[in-house]
Amino acid sequence: VSRGVAGAAPERSRLEPGIARLKEALPPRSWLDEPAAMEPYVVDWRGLYRGRSPLVLRPDTVEQVSAALAICNEHRIAVVPQGGNTGLTGGSVPAGDGAAVVLSLDRLDRIRALDAAGFTITVDAGCILAEIQSAADATDRFFPLSLGAEGSCRIGGNLSTNAGGIQVLRYGMARDLTLGLEVVLPDGRVLEGLSGLRKDNTGYDLKQLFIGAEGTLGVITGATLKLFPKPMDRVTAFYAVASPAAALALFGELRERTADGLIAFELLHRPILDLVFRNIPRTGDPLERPYEWYVLFEAAGPPIAQGLASGIEAATEAWMEAGLVLDGTVAATEAQRLAFWRIRESVADAQKVEGIGIRHDVSVPVNAVPEFLARALPAATAAFEGLRPIAFGHAGDGNIHFNLLQPPGMSDAVFLEATPRLNRLVHDIVASLGGSISAEHGIGRLRRTELPAYKSEAAMALMHSLKATLDPNGIMNPGVLL
Amino acid sequence: VSRGVAGAAPERSRLEPGIARLKEALPPRSWLDEPAAMEPYVVDWRGLYRGRSPLVLRPDTVEQVSAALAICNEHRIAVVPQGGNTGLTGGSVPAGDGAAVVLSLDRLDRIRALDAAGFTITVDAGCILAEIQSAADATDRFFPLSLGAEGSCRIGGNLSTNAGGIQVLRYGMARDLTLGLEVVLPDGRVLEGLSGLRKDNTGYDLKQLFIGAEGTLGVITGATLKLFPKPMDRVTAFYAVASPAAALALFGELRERTADGLIAFELLHRPILDLVFRNIPRTGDPLERPYEWYVLFEAAGPPIAQGLASGIEAATEAWMEAGLVLDGTVAATEAQRLAFWRIRESVADAQKVEGIGIRHDVSVPVNAVPEFLARALPAATAAFEGLRPIAFGHAGDGNIHFNLLQPPGMSDAVFLEATPRLNRLVHDIVASLGGSISAEHGIGRLRRTELPAYKSEAAMALMHSLKATLDPNGIMNPGVLL
Repeated sequence: VSRGVAGAAPERSRLEPGIARLKEALPPRSWLDEPAAMEPYVVDWRGLYRGRSPLVLRPDTVEQVSAALAICNEHRIAVVPQGGNTGLTGGSVPAGDGAAVVLSLDRLDRIRALDAAGFTITVDAGCILAEIQSAADATDRFFPLSLGAEGSCRIGGNLSTNAGGIQVLRYGMARDLTLGLEVVLPDGRVLEGLSGLRKDNTGYDLKQLFIGAEGTLGVITGATLKLFPKPMDRVTAFYAVASPAAALALFGELRERTADGLIAFELLHRPILDLVFRNIPRTGDPLERPYEWYVLFEAAGPPIAQGLASGIEAATEAWMEAGLVLDGTVAATEAQRLAFWRIRESVADAQKVEGIGIRHDVSVPVNAVPEFLARALPAATAAFEGLRPIAFGHAGDGNIHFNLLQPPGMSDAVFLEATPRLNRLVHDIVASLGGSISAEHGIGRLRRTELPAYKSEAAMALMHSLKATLDPNGIMNPGVLL
Repeated sequence: VSRGVAGAAPERSRLEPGIARLKEALPPRSWLDEPAAMEPYVVDWRGLYRGRSPLVLRPDTVEQVSAALAICNEHRIAVVPQGGNTGLTGGSVPAGDGAAVVLSLDRLDRIRALDAAGFTITVDAGCILAEIQSAADATDRFFPLSLGAEGSCRIGGNLSTNAGGIQVLRYGMARDLTLGLEVVLPDGRVLEGLSGLRKDNTGYDLKQLFIGAEGTLGVITGATLKLFPKPMDRVTAFYAVASPAAALALFGELRERTADGLIAFELLHRPILDLVFRNIPRTGDPLERPYEWYVLFEAAGPPIAQGLASGIEAATEAWMEAGLVLDGTVAATEAQRLAFWRIRESVADAQKVEGIGIRHDVSVPVNAVPEFLARALPAATAAFEGLRPIAFGHAGDGNIHFNLLQPPGMSDAVFLEATPRLNRLVHDIVASLGGSISAEHGIGRLRRTELPAYKSEAAMALMHSLKATLDPNGIMNPGVLL
């Protein structure tokens, strides 16, 4: 199943002079042009988007990035910036026409500085997320961005897509973790901004333009990021709740009574648990009998005080009396804690076993989560015989992953043909609740044609103006986002 | 002492057709043209910037703001957006040439919606900050933006200047508190963005452009803001520390051991305490004998746990043994807590009694605060006979207010003449440490000519490009920021 744009054959003659200059300007270790070597760079990790490219650039200095972009800009050669190539929307692979070079940041991967006293780290854009986490950990600090792909995704990609993940509730998105950026503009100029300042009100906050821009305005080459104290006195619990509305009430109680020490608050629907227990070894129900809705939450308290866990346990009695919580268990050991999280983290793999999923990464205002589920679950079931809607996600952020699982026995082709209709069904409910059709995955190639239907004309026009201002020749990641 | 630009007389004939159209388009209650009525809108609250204007607009709907901007844009009439007019850099008053209309948001002041369950509030831009705090408080929620002018500043101005204040450490700047904005663009189009979503990765984050832009790109008319649980189990302490470096070490200890429950961490130099105790009634030294450096900090713990205060007191013994803390007291009552804060909050008034202060609102990386003070304090004293440097501020954010107090007996004129030299002295030290010449006050008219010396060429060029893209006729707040 390839959604790669087929496109026309590249005008090789048009590209050749620029490609030749790129090969001259960069040392041979900084580019690839053999098809076999380029393969991992032209297809996304799920194999859904396959493109073509005449050249993959792998600069290992900011100066090389700058030189490469200046040449591409002069020769009007399109550039696809790429981090770990782990995105879910096809934004990091070239189109099928072979007219764009890939600019991989995978060799620009040094940790430049770590300031434990000032709670900051400065890194190259190609640093793997897990390596940043480890470097922080080694100095008794904590970098909270955490997501499934953390062992292979790279921070430049995380920033370009404004990645979210499990701990957004307490620590924010990638944007919120960024103090400074170094960016190479499409014409090769370098915008230096790695100050690491907590406060700087000297004009427009330029870094904000590039965060979440999916590589369409320039290339992020470095970042200064916030670090935090390590969460300690951590409490992890797996509760059955009466309903999504009860989950929302519990969310408010927990935020209040932990003084906003709530780090994660994940909502899980029973069919997901069954899917996981069926397909993923070493998983099992933490509770004795089944319920319809669950939350998995984690809170951290000040190690200087005492008793967060016992406080939560005591409060839980009141929540059970009030009918919010039906049953539950608090992890007594680290192994138990990891077992709870294994359930949540296995959802993607468990789905894959049972067929194609048409994914929706949507958000609504937090208090509209119950209404979204009350409308979207029956609508999806009614729309399609045998369709299995899978709802889970970061309820504390209003972010629901709403995936529609292939009916057993239905062919891939028939199911995929229904994609536009099912997208529209889900996204129209989202829009009617004031929500977003992409909470954390971005637009990429996947949602590009849907975007104008859900954004205002004024917003679309302003985005196009900004694109034209920063990238007047339109070389940056064409076909993605805008 | 007026720094108002004298300027040339307004070309009344050029302005008249547009002014007439504005008066027709808006109801009579929505504008003022009598000089006496306009007076509060053309001079800043400290009386340092006095301008002139042919018309003050006071729209009470977004539609009126839109209509007014469309007319101004068509007639090329400059517009000075104004909130509570409490800024410190002259950014909210017109220049002296009388060529700009003032657009006050003071009648667009409704609270549109409060969602306690979802922890959000949606407000008109003209809402007074303290009223937003009160509305949140009434539903058991907390809006953390807090600063001296909160009784009269308006949220649109706070957002346009990306205001900071006392609790940035834990809750962030105004930018970090913003979920959505409604903005009227210079041509009158309305950019709707009051979604209140926690996560929305559907393209460029347009609201970021207008936050901190000081009214040069459009007019903020509404905002959806984050609310928080109320801080409870609060501990407030006033400690003498061995040095700024010891303060920094204590800061790290507190962040770790309170699980980032540290809300405020203010550094105070002894001369400031003397200044306050001398000039402000009902203030006095919380400790028995004087020390050179102090911190005033506040932390909050989870009410569900116990013993933050006793935990901090126990840890303090170890910090005293290690020589970080020399002496200290933890507020035992709310009255004592308020007395500690009264010292900090009286600094501005205490200064005023003793003469003119040349102010610097600078930031450096948090771990460079000790070095900044070690260089700037002696440099200031050496630069000028009798000059009294006053250093205080949000050390946890790397933000120091570094004010230079008029030598006793020196004339205002002689002292003020030295302003550019003293600015340069302070700001060059800041720049050498990778700092910012405006941490939270903004650029306004005050720092506009200094800005290009401290920003890179690429950053200045990009800011000018953005300005030209969003406001091609240059009508928005000319003479401010850029």
